[in-house]
Amino acid sequence: METEEVQNNYFNSYEDLEVHTLMLEDEPRNLAYKKAILGNKCYFKDKIVMDVGCGTGILSVFCAQADAKKVYAVEASNLANLAREIVKENGFENVIEIIHSKVEDVILPNNIKVDVIVSEWMGFYLLHEGMLDSVLIARDKFLKEGGEMFPETAVIYVAPCSIPSLYSKWNNVHGVSMSAFAKHLRKNKSTKPEILNIEQKDLLGDEVALCWINLREDNASDLNEFSIQHVVGAKKSGSYEGLCLWFECNFPSMSETKDENRIILDTSPNSLATHWKQTAIVLPHEVEVEEGEPIAFQLSMKRDTEHNRRYNLQMTLLDPEAVDHPQPCSCHMTKCILIKAFMESH
Amino acid sequence: METEEVQNNYFNSYEDLEVHTLMLEDEPRNLAYKKAILGNKCYFKDKIVMDVGCGTGILSVFCAQADAKKVYAVEASNLANLAREIVKENGFENVIEIIHSKVEDVILPNNIKVDVIVSEWMGFYLLHEGMLDSVLIARDKFLKEGGEMFPETAVIYVAPCSIPSLYSKWNNVHGVSMSAFAKHLRKNKSTKPEILNIEQKDLLGDEVALCWINLREDNASDLNEFSIQHVVGAKKSGSYEGLCLWFECNFPSMSETKDENRIILDTSPNSLATHWKQTAIVLPHEVEVEEGEPIAFQLSMKRDTEHNRRYNLQMTLLDPEAVDHPQPCSCHMTKCILIKAFMESH
Repeated sequence: METEEVQNNYFNSYEDLEVHTLMLEDEPRNLAYKKAILGNKCYFKDKIVMDVGCGTGILSVFCAQADAKKVYAVEASNLANLAREIVKENGFENVIEIIHSKVEDVILPNNIKVDVIVSEWMGFYLLHEGMLDSVLIARDKFLKEGGEMFPETAVIYVAPCSIPSLYSKWNNVHGVSMSAFAKHLRKNKSTKPEILNIEQKDLLGDEVALCWINLREDNASDLNEFSIQHVVGAKKSGSYEGLCLWFECNFPSMSETKDENRIILDTSPNSLATHWKQTAIVLPHEVEVEEGEPIAFQLSMKRDTEHNRRYNLQMTLLDPEAVDHPQPCSCHMTKCILIKAFMESH
Repeated sequence: METEEVQNNYFNSYEDLEVHTLMLEDEPRNLAYKKAILGNKCYFKDKIVMDVGCGTGILSVFCAQADAKKVYAVEASNLANLAREIVKENGFENVIEIIHSKVEDVILPNNIKVDVIVSEWMGFYLLHEGMLDSVLIARDKFLKEGGEMFPETAVIYVAPCSIPSLYSKWNNVHGVSMSAFAKHLRKNKSTKPEILNIEQKDLLGDEVALCWINLREDNASDLNEFSIQHVVGAKKSGSYEGLCLWFECNFPSMSETKDENRIILDTSPNSLATHWKQTAIVLPHEVEVEEGEPIAFQLSMKRDTEHNRRYNLQMTLLDPEAVDHPQPCSCHMTKCILIKAFMESH
């Protein structure tokens, strides 16, 4: 591996190269940004743009294709050199200026401000190892009053789920029972959030938002901790094996019928798979639930005190009898059925 | 990672766990062994079997399901403990005996010999990091005269190919030219064989066997080096970007119409993808070839002198004018067309 790292001018490691390959192969990711930028040229035409953490430079090229006057593409790693080559092979060396620097250290000529900031800063379960803090610093330093953020909002959702790939799948592997293997897999995977694809059919209840981030307004300190206590009625009978987390990002849109044409990068189990997949917090033992049965949990997501860009997730199973339910609540407890009926009739 | 390794009784590393998950999820692998064993029960019924490197024990359970009298399941790693649990949950603890040992150190009671050896010993491009040497040692120590080997033969094939994932794919990524990225990918990947899926449509010429291994007869020293010099006519025009390697394993079969019912574990681009994928030796620059054009190469595969289980692959491009062509040859050189026509007319 050492040899490769020495030979490699651009990537910090082989893993880094693989990650960038994965990202460039991620169609829903690329298409969401492409549609958000090229489908809303008015935000870019003759405008000054900053791309924070431009990587290989693909988003900067989209902005130039949308007729931006100038794109400052900031990249701290040696990938900046590769981005420069890619900008050149696309003929935009007069529009896109690659700045090989941390965005925190960037100084623009004449302290110019930018009209738009674009960035693909999202990590697993949105915030893990992501670079949102840097994007917010760039916003405060460089974005014009009333400028646009691409994306402008981000939401993390949570729903109870089955996780067959860690449970039932192993009950019968071509006629062989391998539940001991599954048990072992879970033992290994329950120590940290598991990145995996969850299918829509394996969601046991409706999702709830753990947090809603507004990139125009929120500050880094707003991102230190998110917490939710929730009760949801199982929408079908099944094996409750963990919580499924995913995120979506929303982009500004000029369309008047905003809701219909909104560009969303959606990483839910209902959408095409992305390299972020979903994140599961895996229960050590499954819990069989009936349709309508209340599932109550507490989930918190806190910044790691040592590693600022990491978050720790903690899930606590709660007794549905002992906590407040939302109003209305989808569970089958008498109180919730009555409240729901009452609210629906008014 | 340290924490995980300490917590982990069975697997040497998290990677090891992932590899075993991949193997157990590999349907063509599992089904080939299952069919070979359960479709040929006569080889197993009331017989004594040894499973060399049993891993999680799935093949041993297949053998027990095929009514083996006794299965010695040998596993050197701590996975032996997991295999024991799996044997138990399938109710075969009286048939399958897990032996936690290197096969080289095993002593069977009364120096008993076995009727059949089963093993899934194959690595990437068949031999890389595989454990065929151990299987051959087990054969010499434990297999009865005339006993069966599952699998009994293995072949490595080679064919010239295009590799779009390292070349043409990057010419247009949602309207952005990223050939600088592709060039960089190749620079990183040309230092070692690349494990990836090649599609059938990307094979540019017919395959040739690099080696043919007979597990009943060959010895470890027969596996030290394989080498081939070959010329093949391109079967269509295209971009020649490397050599594609894959292997197949053949199992004994009782069927009289042997060829039709032969059980083959085939890892070619024409078959369902396996966790072995294919292996590519990537050219630093593509070569455009016309249909019928001769492609000449020399390929050698030699044991690494330091790491006995590793092999080094070396490819040399040859001048088709300067080397002997096979007879008949599929290329469009006049001599080959004449020889082929002559041979076909006789």
